[in-house]
Amino acid sequence: VDIVFLALPHGVAAEFAAPLVEKGIRVVDLSADFRLKSAEVYKSFYAHEHPAPGLLNLSVYGLPEIYREQIRESRFIAAPGCYPTSILLPTIPLLRAGLVQATGIIADSLSGVSGAGRKAEVDYLFVECNESVRAYGVPKHRHLSEIEQELSVAAQKDVVINFTPHLIPVNRGILTTLYLKPTKPLANAKATADFEAAVRDCYAKVYGNEPFVRILEGSRLPDTKNVVGTNFIEIAWRLDSRTGRLLVFSAIDNLTKGAAGQAIQAMNLMFGVEETAGLL
Amino acid sequence: VDIVFLALPHGVAAEFAAPLVEKGIRVVDLSADFRLKSAEVYKSFYAHEHPAPGLLNLSVYGLPEIYREQIRESRFIAAPGCYPTSILLPTIPLLRAGLVQATGIIADSLSGVSGAGRKAEVDYLFVECNESVRAYGVPKHRHLSEIEQELSVAAQKDVVINFTPHLIPVNRGILTTLYLKPTKPLANAKATADFEAAVRDCYAKVYGNEPFVRILEGSRLPDTKNVVGTNFIEIAWRLDSRTGRLLVFSAIDNLTKGAAGQAIQAMNLMFGVEETAGLL
Amino acid sequence: VDIVFLALPHGVAAEFAAPLVEKGIRVVDLSADFRLKSAEVYKSFYAHEHPAPGLLNLSVYGLPEIYREQIRESRFIAAPGCYPTSILLPTIPLLRAGLVQATGIIADSLSGVSGAGRKAEVDYLFVECNESVRAYGVPKHRHLSEIEQELSVAAQKDVVINFTPHLIPVNRGILTTLYLKPTKPLANAKATADFEAAVRDCYAKVYGNEPFVRILEGSRLPDTKNVVGTNFIEIAWRLDSRTGRLLVFSAIDNLTKGAAGQAIQAMNLMFGVEETAGLL
Amino acid sequence: VDIVFLALPHGVAAEFAAPLVEKGIRVVDLSADFRLKSAEVYKSFYAHEHPAPGLLNLSVYGLPEIYREQIRESRFIAAPGCYPTSILLPTIPLLRAGLVQATGIIADSLSGVSGAGRKAEVDYLFVECNESVRAYGVPKHRHLSEIEQELSVAAQKDVVINFTPHLIPVNRGILTTLYLKPTKPLANAKATADFEAAVRDCYAKVYGNEPFVRILEGSRLPDTKNVVGTNFIEIAWRLDSRTGRLLVFSAIDNLTKGAAGQAIQAMNLMFGVEETAGLL
Repeated sequence: VDIVFLALPHGVAAEFAAPLVEKGIRVVDLSADFRLKSAEVYKSFYAHEHPAPGLLNLSVYGLPEIYREQIRESRFIAAPGCYPTSILLPTIPLLRAGLVQATGIIADSLSGVSGAGRKAEVDYLFVECNESVRAYGVPKHRHLSEIEQELSVAAQKDVVINFTPHLIPVNRGILTTLYLKPTKPLANAKATADFEAAVRDCYAKVYGNEPFVRILEGSRLPDTKNVVGTNFIEIAWRLDSRTGRLLVFSAIDNLTKGAAGQAIQAMNLMFGVEETAGLL
Repeated sequence: VDIVFLALPHGVAAEFAAPLVEKGIRVVDLSADFRLKSAEVYKSFYAHEHPAPGLLNLSVYGLPEIYREQIRESRFIAAPGCYPTSILLPTIPLLRAGLVQATGIIADSLSGVSGAGRKAEVDYLFVECNESVRAYGVPKHRHLSEIEQELSVAAQKDVVINFTPHLIPVNRGILTTLYLKPTKPLANAKATADFEAAVRDCYAKVYGNEPFVRILEGSRLPDTKNVVGTNFIEIAWRLDSRTGRLLVFSAIDNLTKGAAGQAIQAMNLMFGVEETAGLL
Repeated sequence: VDIVFLALPHGVAAEFAAPLVEKGIRVVDLSADFRLKSAEVYKSFYAHEHPAPGLLNLSVYGLPEIYREQIRESRFIAAPGCYPTSILLPTIPLLRAGLVQATGIIADSLSGVSGAGRKAEVDYLFVECNESVRAYGVPKHRHLSEIEQELSVAAQKDVVINFTPHLIPVNRGILTTLYLKPTKPLANAKATADFEAAVRDCYAKVYGNEPFVRILEGSRLPDTKNVVGTNFIEIAWRLDSRTGRLLVFSAIDNLTKGAAGQAIQAMNLMFGVEETAGLL
Repeated sequence: VDIVFLALPHGVAAEFAAPLVEKGIRVVDLSADFRLKSAEVYKSFYAHEHPAPGLLNLSVYGLPEIYREQIRESRFIAAPGCYPTSILLPTIPLLRAGLVQATGIIADSLSGVSGAGRKAEVDYLFVECNESVRAYGVPKHRHLSEIEQELSVAAQKDVVINFTPHLIPVNRGILTTLYLKPTKPLANAKATADFEAAVRDCYAKVYGNEPFVRILEGSRLPDTKNVVGTNFIEIAWRLDSRTGRLLVFSAIDNLTKGAAGQAIQAMNLMFGVEETAGLL
C-alpha cells in the first residue's frame, strides 16, 4: 500500500490515521481531524477531546495552491473542508499582500445539499430542501476553526471572521461572497484605480499559472454550474467605490475542489506526478 | 373606479399614474417610479430622466409596518421592491432605536427566479438557473436606491450600504442575511446581555402586534418555504460575540409580501378595512 | 365532537376508526384501511390481515364527483388515495358511458416526492431525488387495489390494469397519462369524429357543472403547476387516429385534491354546507 | 479535414451536409435530416420538403448497438434522436427475436429540459418548468417518424406506436417506460417462466458484451441520475402477470447517449479506433 485515503467522520478518522502514519504509509485524510494545529481549538469546535493530538503537527493542510511545496514533501495530508477552500483561496493572496484588512472579514456562503452528507435526516429530505433556502450553523460553524487558522497564518496575526453558511436547493456547489476592506483608504479616483490594479496584479501573479484557478474578467461572475463536476475554482471581484468594500466571489464543486478532487491533486503532488492527472 | 393597481415597467407606470393621481383616483403603483423622493437618484439608478418628477412628493412608500398612518391618509402608494422589503423591515427598527450603526451595513440577499419577471431571456431558462447559483447586479443594483433612501430616513443621516443580490433555483422567496454593528462596544458579558435584551425588546415592541411579522425564537431561522404563498416576513437574529456583529435574517415571498400581498395590505389601509383582509 | 379526520398509517387507522364509527361520530379516514370492500384484496396488497373487516361495508369511497349522494348520507368516509383520484376521475365517466374498453387500460403516473410522506429515508433525500426520475412499485403498487375496485364498479365487470408510478423531482403534484381503447372501431373519419364528439359530450355532461374539474380545450394539456395548492383536477384528452388509442391526461395536487382537500370536500357534503367551502 | 460534426437545425443541416458528403468527407449529422429513409415521411413530420432527398439512402442511422458494421463502413452518419435512442435500444432486440408483438406498443417518455435546446422561450423559463410536469407534442411528435421506421425494420412489418413525451424539471436525462405485449399467451406459470427466461436470454445475448448497455438485475430500476454525464443506457424489465404485459424501462442522458456521446461512439467506429475512446 502506497497511500490511503480516509473518508470517515471526525473523531473516527484519527483512529485509523494514527497507525498508518506511524508505519510511514501516505495518508490523505478527508475528515476534520488533522486540519487544526491546536487540540484546544479542535475541542472548542468539535466538542470532544482530540483523539490523537500528538499527530497534529505532522499533517499538512492540503490546499495545493497555498502549500504546494509542503504537500510534495509530506506523507500526511489533511484535506481542507469545502467551505474553507472556497473562502481561503480568494482571501489568502490578498491578506499576504497586505491589500485587505485582517479584521472585519465576512464570508457568506451558499452550499448545495450534498455538503450535508448522505444522512437519512428529515432536514435533508427533498421536500424540506426544494423550494427552500435557509441559513444554518450560525454564528460558529465548525469549518470556521480551520478558516480562521489559515487566515491567521496568511495575515500573521489572529483573524476572527463572520462566516454564514446557507443551504440552497442544488445538489453540488458552493458560492461564497466575501466582504473585505482595503488596508488603505480609497480617498480619490487615483487611489481607487491603484488599488484595483494591485488586486488584479496580485491574483494574476499568484494564480496566473494555477491549473485549477480561473480569475474571471469583464462582467462575468462565478456560477456553481460552471465548476460542478470539475476541480476548478472561479473567482471574481468588484470594488464598491460607494462603500469602499472589496467584494470577492468564488464558486467550487464542494465534492471535487472542495473534497475528493483536491485530495487527488494533493496525491499527485505527493507522488511527483503531473498535478492535474485525472482531474482535467 | 375607486383604485387602480399599476403593474408596469418603470418609466411606463408614471405615464399611467399621472392622470389617475391628478383625477384623485387612488393608485397603488408596483413599479419603481414613485418609490424615490429624488429625481436625481432615480436617474442615477434607472438611467433615464424621471418621467413625472412633480408627483414624487405625493406618493407614500407602501411599507405598512413603517408608514401605516401615512398610507391610511394617502391616495397614491408606491409599493416597495421585493429586496427592499426584506431588508428594511428587519433594519429600520434597530436604526430608529439607535441600536446599530448606520455605517458598514451589508445586505446579502438570495432571490428566487420569479424576481426576474417572465421575460424570455436565456439567463432565466430552466437549464441556466437549475443547479446554479450566482451573484448579479453588483455592486449597484437598482433596488439599492430605495433601500438607502429609507434607511437614511430611519437613521436620520445618509446611509450607504453594500447590497449583494444572488439568484438561486427556487421559484419564489427571498432570504436576506444582514450584517450590522452595534452602536455600543460589547466589552463584557453584561454589555452583551444588555444589547441582546435591547434587540429583543425593540423587535417585540415594534413588531409584537404586527399581523404579518414573525420574530423567530430559539434555534429557528427564517426559511423561504415557511413564508412562500403568504404575506408574512420571518425575522431572526444572532449576536456573534466573537466578532461583535449582529446578524439578522429575514425571509419573504417576493411576490406576496414583496409585491402583490403588500400592495393589498396597503389598499386595505387606504380603504379603512381590516388590514389582513384577503391575506390570511 | 362532530367529525374526526384520521391521518394515520394503514393498519393503525382502523384501530382508531372503529370505536368512533361505533359511537356514531363522523369519520373521514385518509388511510387506505377502509377504501377496499374486500378484506382479501386488502391482505393481498397490504400484506397483513384487515384489522376491522366488519366495518368495510360501512365506509363510502370519498370521491365526491362519483359518490356525491352516498357521501351526503354517510358518516364514514374512506378518502381516496392520490394516484387513484388522478386515474379514476378521468376514466370512470368513459367506462360508465361504454366509450372505452375495460381491458388493456394503462395508467402511467408521475408523482412529486411529498407523495412518499415525511419519512427520513435515504431514497427521499434531496440529492437522491433531485435531477432524477425513476419508476417504482411496479407492477403491483398498493393503490392498484382501489383503482381496480372502482374501475370494476364503473365497468360492471372485473377490471385489471397496468399502473406505473414514477417519482419526479417536484414537491407536489401528480400527472397521469392514460391509454384507453375505444369500444367501437374507428374505421373512418365519420366514426372518429363521432367518437370524439361522444367523449366531449360525456365529459361535458358529467363534469360540466363540477366545481373542481376543469376539462381543458384546444391545445392545452394538464400541468401540475396549474393545480398545485388547489382542489382542482385538470383533464384533457387526445384521440390518436394513427393507433386508435384515446389518451387522457390529468393533473392534481396529491396533497389537496389527492388527499386533504378532497377530504374537506367530502366533509362539506356530510354537513350539508357549500361543497366548495374553504376550498376556493 | 477528416470528419465534420453537424449540430444544426433540421432543414439547415442538409445544406451543409450535401457538399461535404459529395466530397467524400466523413459527416456525423446530429440533426433529423438524414435519419429517415423516406422523403415523404420526412415531409409529413417536419412540414417541409426534404432539402436533399438524393442523399437519404447514403446515410446510416447511427445506433452503434444496432448498426455497428454499417457504421464502420459508412462515411455519413445520421445520429439518432434522444427519445428514439431510449426507445429503440430496449425494443429492437425483443422485436427481432419475435418475443413481443409489433402492434400496440406504447412508449411513455420523460425528458429533462435540455432536450428543448437553448431557446429563449417562455415555455422553458425556470419558473415555467420548475415544480411542473406536463405532456407535450402528442400524439405525433417528430421523433415518432424515426422510431417507427426503425421498429418496422426490426419487426419486418409496418409498426405504428403511441409515443408520449413529457417535460420534467431536470436538466438532463430521459426515462422511458415501454408497454409491450408478448407474442405468445402466458397461459400458465410455465409459459410465464419460459417467457421471462427468453427475455433475459435475449438481452444477455444481444447486450451482454455491449460497453454502454447495462441490463439491471434484481430490484433495481433505471434512474436518470445514474446515467447523466455518461454514454450508458440502463434497461430493466418486469413481466406483469396480472395483465400479461411486459414493461421495459430505460434511462439515458439525452445529451450524451442521446446525442453527442453516441455520435462520438459512431466516429470511433468509423475510424476503427476503440469504440469507447473518450467515453469512459
